[in-house]
Amino acid sequence: MQVRTNSKNSELVERARRVIPGGMYGHESTVLLPADYPQFFARAEGARLWDVDGNEYVDYMCAYGPNLMGYNHASIDAAARAQQALGDTLTGPSEVMVRLAEDFVGMVSHADWAMFCKNGSDATSMAMVMARAYRGRRKILAAKGAYHGASVWNTPGQGGILPEDRAHIVYFDYNDLDSLMDAVKACDGDVAGIFATPFRHEVFEDQFLPSVDYAKGVRKICDDLDAVLIVDDVRAGFRLARDCSWSLLGVEPDLSAWGKVLANGYPISALLGSDRMRDAARSIFVTGSFWFSAVPMAAAIETLRLVRESDYLERMVAIADLLRAGIAEQALRHGFALRQTGPSQMPQMLFEDDPDMRVGYCWTAAAVRRGVYLHPYHNMFVTSALTPADIEKTLTVTEEAFVELRREYATLAPQSNEYVAARLKARAAA
Amino acid sequence: MQVRTNSKNSELVERARRVIPGGMYGHESTVLLPADYPQFFARAEGARLWDVDGNEYVDYMCAYGPNLMGYNHASIDAAARAQQALGDTLTGPSEVMVRLAEDFVGMVSHADWAMFCKNGSDATSMAMVMARAYRGRRKILAAKGAYHGASVWNTPGQGGILPEDRAHIVYFDYNDLDSLMDAVKACDGDVAGIFATPFRHEVFEDQFLPSVDYAKGVRKICDDLDAVLIVDDVRAGFRLARDCSWSLLGVEPDLSAWGKVLANGYPISALLGSDRMRDAARSIFVTGSFWFSAVPMAAAIETLRLVRESDYLERMVAIADLLRAGIAEQALRHGFALRQTGPSQMPQMLFEDDPDMRVGYCWTAAAVRRGVYLHPYHNMFVTSALTPADIEKTLTVTEEAFVELRREYATLAPQSNEYVAARLKARAAA
Repeated sequence: MQVRTNSKNSELVERARRVIPGGMYGHESTVLLPADYPQFFARAEGARLWDVDGNEYVDYMCAYGPNLMGYNHASIDAAARAQQALGDTLTGPSEVMVRLAEDFVGMVSHADWAMFCKNGSDATSMAMVMARAYRGRRKILAAKGAYHGASVWNTPGQGGILPEDRAHIVYFDYNDLDSLMDAVKACDGDVAGIFATPFRHEVFEDQFLPSVDYAKGVRKICDDLDAVLIVDDVRAGFRLARDCSWSLLGVEPDLSAWGKVLANGYPISALLGSDRMRDAARSIFVTGSFWFSAVPMAAAIETLRLVRESDYLERMVAIADLLRAGIAEQALRHGFALRQTGPSQMPQMLFEDDPDMRVGYCWTAAAVRRGVYLHPYHNMFVTSALTPADIEKTLTVTEEAFVELRREYATLAPQSNEYVAARLKARAAA
Repeated sequence: MQVRTNSKNSELVERARRVIPGGMYGHESTVLLPADYPQFFARAEGARLWDVDGNEYVDYMCAYGPNLMGYNHASIDAAARAQQALGDTLTGPSEVMVRLAEDFVGMVSHADWAMFCKNGSDATSMAMVMARAYRGRRKILAAKGAYHGASVWNTPGQGGILPEDRAHIVYFDYNDLDSLMDAVKACDGDVAGIFATPFRHEVFEDQFLPSVDYAKGVRKICDDLDAVLIVDDVRAGFRLARDCSWSLLGVEPDLSAWGKVLANGYPISALLGSDRMRDAARSIFVTGSFWFSAVPMAAAIETLRLVRESDYLERMVAIADLLRAGIAEQALRHGFALRQTGPSQMPQMLFEDDPDMRVGYCWTAAAVRRGVYLHPYHNMFVTSALTPADIEKTLTVTEEAFVELRREYATLAPQSNEYVAARLKARAAA
């Protein structure tokens, strides 16, 4: 293993501490990760990422999702550059907005219309407001612990959030129709809408797909109540299907929220809806300075073309299956019970008997030091740009990481990270 | 006047109606504007804009603000392209995030730290949550009718919004310390923060700067209460000063929200804060998929360099003064009482005795048909890329528009637009 330096990263972390609260914030902060994780990156290409010290990684986070077709994708970047030469943020939208809406609506079975925005949180918040506008009801049902964004009504943080921000958010257990029906009954006729992540994909947790009965049951409840079913596909969109993810379960929502992969990293998100929701959509006022910018829309048009016309999905799943099989074999051989859950292209890897994450942290840190960027507790993302050579390098590295883990296992120090401790305590109490 | 076509725009409007609710939404919708306004644009350069039918405009909306240095600005676009070749949306931020925070904090007197986001609404919502986190209080004071974004707590729309979303938002009259003190007293010790737009810049209204006494009074109230003063500079930032806009009044806020011009149209917004707010900033959880993307940050670094090192501000004000003087002379000569209010570089132009806007709509429609894009009721934005030739063309067009207005004046039809009617009724009732 070559000598790895991180002096530039350390210098930037130090500078960042002075001018950014905590040095960094949000989902890409490495403050909860082992110290070997770099915070700052210099460049990327395909499935590879280089940190500011020049260390190279096979990247299994994909910018926490957006990298679907490969970083710096030739035809997507070309589409963006061509639009940039004409104009981006103008006094109104460009033709690409209409073309993108037409293309997107043509691909997603339940959708008759599209609205574009910037953040995934914009799309989920629009869905919430629209569901309330639809029949003038108030209650929004969401699964306990599900991540639907970082606005006041859904951020997992507590700081500065008031009880009133969630006064009409009602929680139930995911994939549990009895729990959902209890929540519905408690709403006493005031159900506006029900949120659903396409599968269970929360931090620190095993992932799982809901049952078909569950998904169809949620649809039926919404039909019976004339309430709105919202699938939050921000995280999983186009990694499971070329349609809304719940199309795999035979269920069409009224609204679906999209983001992340939509333009392969160019900033755009969207809410799609059915005709039933069109009047409600017109009745709300939402906007943003950059929501109508043309460049991300041009990039999205090309990304969607690749989704429709290429075999990106089959390639991505095939290569992700190779990764899963290889790591499963290694874990078994080294005597570790590693749970790999969720779709292989959005893998979660958690060790058995690892209550304070010391095992997972050791193994992923050993991998990141050797040039494979895994995540110890957040679901990962596979890009269709991964090659067999990337998998080969990955498995070489994870093999070495298992060897290191086995060597260190008996003397691993507990993770003292306060957040992790609190999170695990909350899980134990739940 | 050459024959003007709009067939391509009409075709796109028709197609958009099918796949976008209402055909368009948000602040760039032309549904409330005269029919001559194009909805869709093809390209832009400097201060000029071309619609999809090839009609050219001198653009006084600047994408509703962002165009500060000129559309397709050479050095800003070059900085963005150079970063794009390296990477944009990655698994973590790039060095540009730290450099941008350092540069920005170095320019804004009150600021010790920066957090970046995408929408102006992100920045104002973060400020609200942070103000509540600061001392654990709930009440947020905001001026009646002030626009601070389009999230649930501040959108001017009513659809889908619940009383609970504004349960702890308390309204007062802008630039009125007595009204503000009444609001403070009603909060009974629970004041978290006070929002302030740098000047009054609401649709359909004359603009005005607050008094120095008012601004200093707000600062003193916040000091006395240990509450947070937030200047919302999203709309006005860097058009009044190279610092926070209230620096002109000798007042430093605790937080300031920025957006629009920050990267001359590349999508990025920011919240700046003082050391006093650092712990509160660290205590909230906010994030977004594209908040850490490097390209808009690289563009912002170059935009800020131009703000610091060029005479863009003096040029912009000088050319805006030319426009104001020219239009004032024309209005007077044609016998129209036209109120031009606010800073000349963010002009609002409203006619006297025009209760249903028919005069303003006629005049701006006549201008837009001739290639000058004015706005009948929203403050406009001047770009520093405007040239004396642009002003000359503008004044030639506005002269013709006044001639047309005089000719049509006696027989102008009332504006029947329902929104305008409702808005004006609300104003009359207030």
